[in-house]
Amino acid sequence: MTVKARIDRIGQYVDQEVVLEGWLWNKRSSGKIAFLNFRDGSGFIQCVVAKQDVPEELFTLAKGLTQESSIRITGLVRREERSPIGYEITVSDIEVVARTEDYPITPKEHGVDFLLDHRHLWIRSPRQRAILKVRAEVIKGMRAFFDENGFTQVDPPVLTPSSAEGTTNMFETEYVNGESAYLSQSGQLYMEAAAMALGRVYSFGPTFRAEKSKTRKHMNEFWMIEPEMAYVEHQENMQIQEALVKYTIQHVLEHCQYELKALDRNLEPLERIVKEKFPIITYAEAVQILQDKGHDFPYGEDFGAPHETELTNHFDLPVFVEKWPANIKAFYMQPDPDNPDLILGADLLAPEGYGEIVGGSQRIHDYELMKKRFEEEKFDDSYNWYLELRQYGTVPHSGFGIGLERTIAWICGIDHIRETIMIPRTLYRLYP
Amino acid sequence: MTVKARIDRIGQYVDQEVVLEGWLWNKRSSGKIAFLNFRDGSGFIQCVVAKQDVPEELFTLAKGLTQESSIRITGLVRREERSPIGYEITVSDIEVVARTEDYPITPKEHGVDFLLDHRHLWIRSPRQRAILKVRAEVIKGMRAFFDENGFTQVDPPVLTPSSAEGTTNMFETEYVNGESAYLSQSGQLYMEAAAMALGRVYSFGPTFRAEKSKTRKHMNEFWMIEPEMAYVEHQENMQIQEALVKYTIQHVLEHCQYELKALDRNLEPLERIVKEKFPIITYAEAVQILQDKGHDFPYGEDFGAPHETELTNHFDLPVFVEKWPANIKAFYMQPDPDNPDLILGADLLAPEGYGEIVGGSQRIHDYELMKKRFEEEKFDDSYNWYLELRQYGTVPHSGFGIGLERTIAWICGIDHIRETIMIPRTLYRLYP
Ligand SMILES: [Mg+2]
Ligand SMILES: [Mg+2]
Repeated sequence: MTVKARIDRIGQYVDQEVVLEGWLWNKRSSGKIAFLNFRDGSGFIQCVVAKQDVPEELFTLAKGLTQESSIRITGLVRREERSPIGYEITVSDIEVVARTEDYPITPKEHGVDFLLDHRHLWIRSPRQRAILKVRAEVIKGMRAFFDENGFTQVDPPVLTPSSAEGTTNMFETEYVNGESAYLSQSGQLYMEAAAMALGRVYSFGPTFRAEKSKTRKHMNEFWMIEPEMAYVEHQENMQIQEALVKYTIQHVLEHCQYELKALDRNLEPLERIVKEKFPIITYAEAVQILQDKGHDFPYGEDFGAPHETELTNHFDLPVFVEKWPANIKAFYMQPDPDNPDLILGADLLAPEGYGEIVGGSQRIHDYELMKKRFEEEKFDDSYNWYLELRQYGTVPHSGFGIGLERTIAWICGIDHIRETIMIPRTLYRLYP
Repeated sequence: MTVKARIDRIGQYVDQEVVLEGWLWNKRSSGKIAFLNFRDGSGFIQCVVAKQDVPEELFTLAKGLTQESSIRITGLVRREERSPIGYEITVSDIEVVARTEDYPITPKEHGVDFLLDHRHLWIRSPRQRAILKVRAEVIKGMRAFFDENGFTQVDPPVLTPSSAEGTTNMFETEYVNGESAYLSQSGQLYMEAAAMALGRVYSFGPTFRAEKSKTRKHMNEFWMIEPEMAYVEHQENMQIQEALVKYTIQHVLEHCQYELKALDRNLEPLERIVKEKFPIITYAEAVQILQDKGHDFPYGEDFGAPHETELTNHFDLPVFVEKWPANIKAFYMQPDPDNPDLILGADLLAPEGYGEIVGGSQRIHDYELMKKRFEEEKFDDSYNWYLELRQYGTVPHSGFGIGLERTIAWICGIDHIRETIMIPRTLYRLYP
């Protein structure tokens, strides 16, 4: 029996006959030869049917194949220098599993609404497939980093009684006991509890924001990775973030050459990032840079997209902006001992216009100070457990959240984060 | 400067002085010696303070330490055969980072409601920590299996327009566009679309069921792994499930010896599973076995917990029960060509009373048959995309869902799945 092979491992079968199971992506043919661009999910490969070498019916069948027909191809694996993957198939047989008529996504241009309506099919296209492969490798790279550095994965709950940052932008549902529950925007507070049990932990799961915003950087459902570390302070927190980002990019550069090429990604800026130290500037320095460049930007406000782009263009590298004014950051951030109006936290801005991908900080660990914050924020009893983390076994600790889709959009060099996930959930889109 | 060490890597520092950062779990002491049971999240280690070898104040400090006080310990790493981890620390200094008074979870017995109210602290206990470590290794093992076998991780959406299996048991929320959205019970239908793009895929994420059930095997929020494979039929689907379960158990046996011991897990049944072939019986054979054993069980009903236990006790191994009556299984399951009243699917039942951990099947790939099912089920337009998967590039395909928490409860040998996750969501519990 001929062996079943996969395109991503086809190099193991040179000069052997194999069977490939998949789909015809497209073809071109003349009177003498048909080139089938065949995909099996693991990759794309050119399969060649030469009229003079095969029975007449096979050549006719090959020439008449339609896009996205399901086929089994039998053929010989050959080295081929001109192939983007280095191999080609000389076809000896084709079995049609199912013939497809009128596949809706043709090689012509389609509008984005049409493509999103057909997202369940659009993901078969080489470009969309490449993005989903990069996504999977970004996840694999990040996990490998955490595994190698003593982190334990912990899964915080999605259904929460409320949020420390208010419930305005949260999806609400009725829990089975009749109470209101909200879909988590962040597992951070729970991850702080986990860090006190397991030392170094990270979460990897979906988060939700019910905002009606409609930008290239927002989705209503997106994935976050949230590490939290006991006995780690602000400086080390940034070092770990830098190491994670470098490790992830290095991993993708090693495992996704084919996909990054399919995306026309310029590799130079990514390769540079792996080698160079990320600059760290204070929020005050960032404001100064913006003002020097002619922006009318007042101290004390959050940056918008043009400001983030200006700052990263200035360095052409990811940049940490640290020591923000406390009043524009979250209640749990540790004050700077040198100036309690500032916090020991940083945002990491990605270059090439991608902006904020990480937000992190040292967390307040002093019980009295956290109690004061609770009074200022008027928290009710539902956060008592979080306060108790400072009452029992409190230690300095830090953590951060990295947005998976923004990181992928940056690494892939694509315009809109909706293409970084199989089924995007945006303002007007709950289908498919 | 003395090097910072972690307990899980302490063997690298034998006869060296190290600093450990963590917490006092408990202690016992006499007039001459204090034994500190110290934890740092990565593990537990005994630290010994001998009165004659340290300054008077240090011995006094050690004797007065309270449970869950945050401390830095400096000391010499020594091999110690009697230690469960093989090492011990001879203490030369202790720094108290924060003293804890009246830690609520004392070594005495607490009721389960009290413990669940203090879940954010309870996870620090050796037994709870061990379960969370096993959870993390189960996840790591499963991912390694998928990585090695050509699967790509894909993340299906949580917010869905509705469910093919009805919305009665689903959490509902208002989407940002005003439509009703539901929290996914399963990503399977989306994963079928992904398999047609990427060949072999798996999801790893939270799923939700708004059932008011209150058993040891149900939570309202739980994690599922849902692989889906193009060009894979029923028999191969079961082979892959068996390989996954064996690989995962082998991984846990290799990486969690310490944790399984902390849980008093009998390893013999787990070791046996790795070696032996899982029996496959038909639903009809299963009914016959139950009737032979004196159960008054009619053909055509689903098994309850006692029936699942009886069946697995009969073999003392995980058992596949295949070829169920179509009318008690989901609409998308492929009919058995030998008897279209049965489906080509199987449940995998775990032994030792744990019952169903996997449900899987070959999926209908014929367009006309799926269209007929759609009419029978009276689906509206929101599932057109799923039907289109049969219209364009349809192929035989199969998949399954494995419940993470049930698998962990079984591997850990614990009674209730609520202990397999950091923050369980059950009928009466939305706090912490
Ligand atoms: Mg920002
Ligand atoms: Mg069942």
